[in-house]
Amino acid sequence: MKKLKRSGRLVDMTYYLLQHPHEVISLTHFSERYQSAKSSISEDLVIIKEIFEDEGYGTLLTISGASGGVKFIPRIDYAQAEVFMRELIDQLAVPERILPGGYLYMMDLLGSPRFIQQVGQVFASVLANKRIDAVMTVATKGIPLAYAVAQYLDVPVSIVRRDHLVTEGSMVSINYVSGSSKRIQTMTLARRSLAPNSRVFIVDDFMKAGGTIRGMMDLLDEFQAELVGIGVLVESVGVEERLVDEYMSITRLSEVNVKERKITVEPGNVLDLLKTITLEEEK
Amino acid sequence: MKKLKRSGRLVDMTYYLLQHPHEVISLTHFSERYQSAKSSISEDLVIIKEIFEDEGYGTLLTISGASGGVKFIPRIDYAQAEVFMRELIDQLAVPERILPGGYLYMMDLLGSPRFIQQVGQVFASVLANKRIDAVMTVATKGIPLAYAVAQYLDVPVSIVRRDHLVTEGSMVSINYVSGSSKRIQTMTLARRSLAPNSRVFIVDDFMKAGGTIRGMMDLLDEFQAELVGIGVLVESVGVEERLVDEYMSITRLSEVNVKERKITVEPGNVLDLLKTITLEEEK
Repeated sequence: MKKLKRSGRLVDMTYYLLQHPHEVISLTHFSERYQSAKSSISEDLVIIKEIFEDEGYGTLLTISGASGGVKFIPRIDYAQAEVFMRELIDQLAVPERILPGGYLYMMDLLGSPRFIQQVGQVFASVLANKRIDAVMTVATKGIPLAYAVAQYLDVPVSIVRRDHLVTEGSMVSINYVSGSSKRIQTMTLARRSLAPNSRVFIVDDFMKAGGTIRGMMDLLDEFQAELVGIGVLVESVGVEERLVDEYMSITRLSEVNVKERKITVEPGNVLDLLKTITLEEEK
Repeated sequence: MKKLKRSGRLVDMTYYLLQHPHEVISLTHFSERYQSAKSSISEDLVIIKEIFEDEGYGTLLTISGASGGVKFIPRIDYAQAEVFMRELIDQLAVPERILPGGYLYMMDLLGSPRFIQQVGQVFASVLANKRIDAVMTVATKGIPLAYAVAQYLDVPVSIVRRDHLVTEGSMVSINYVSGSSKRIQTMTLARRSLAPNSRVFIVDDFMKAGGTIRGMMDLLDEFQAELVGIGVLVESVGVEERLVDEYMSITRLSEVNVKERKITVEPGNVLDLLKTITLEEEK
């Protein structure tokens, strides 16, 4: 790369940091990349950090020591998350979403990469100071959410399936009880698809009684993996017996009145969690 | 937003452009955002455009006229795409991937958001000057690829399913013949999930005879939608009768020798296509 002035460096460094979230990048890397003194690079990083923090894009952490450098932690701030959630609640409450049986049509939202990215950013912000090795979800609708979170955390995705595919090698299967229908079902994960002892965040689009998520938690045991957190886009309230205790939700669906065509949606607990997050200490 | 100097503007504009690919952003927008003269904004954009083009991140198009402004087209350049493809071929050729029946384990690649993003960038680069309204894929493995392409193109994703889900409202179903097994199967797409007359790019992880993709093409007819292109991560060569004529592939799998544990992978046609793309004219 040719020698760059500050203006060019700022553009390139911003691009580079956004492409490499949660990765420690040494000052030497930037210094060699731009043929510039480390002192200039440090000044550049101060400018970038200030804009990122002022605008709520995230922060730059300085990692000291021999393997030190700078690390971009993408984070959406509370104010932005609140705006996003208010808009989402308005969008979810549109009566045209109501399907027979009281289900809600959500594929317009789940099919929008920009929407999905925002949800991923909210979850990743709450998880910013946790060590996470993988994001797990179950096919199909959780998949885009899982990739969005995983992209911001820079970790791989493990996709649990309800069928058994021949093209993934040896699989681990468990039986679980679907919380709402009480039926026994099977879910499988390819043996190679999750490293043993991984620290895992589970994500899904919708949670009612939590049977599917409970199933994924049981699968984690089979992989000697550890649960770090659970996130759902929409939780359905008014469930008699919830199979999952701790989780974060973006929104809470409290009522779908098919007859009066009325949907009642409230904010989930994720905003409160976002308030309590500090980045002072890295685990 | 507070008034920013050039250094701060460059960081913020780079961030903003990356979050809004393929969207026309007026100079007025930036000028008001930073309380800066349009002439200064134009100079900023020249700096950003130069870095983006020199480093192969994409380009900034200037759109003239009343609704004019600037538009970021993410593009990976030929050299970067070639490096990416060489590395991918090396990774695919590892004998440990071979599964019983001559299948290849690919979830380590498909489960990596960073890898998926790169594939999405390659496809989006070839499609950079085409008008596309939606990206279509079939569950499960094509989903992350579809979102990656769609994110770079800033369009929604339509997910075709092999089962019939009750939570998506009215569905359109078609029967198709799986090219390799010759069995008749069903695929469905929610009626609301693709707007009529959409211009669609179809993407999938793997293509053998092309029956699944042929099925998606038939589904497009049911939605009065138009096919703009087809992209696959891996095509299997040596197929007797291919059901799809025109497509782009990242890699070509020419042989999986289970006995000798040898995998032969070649570059697909996407590199050649990337060479011929110019951005001079916008459709």
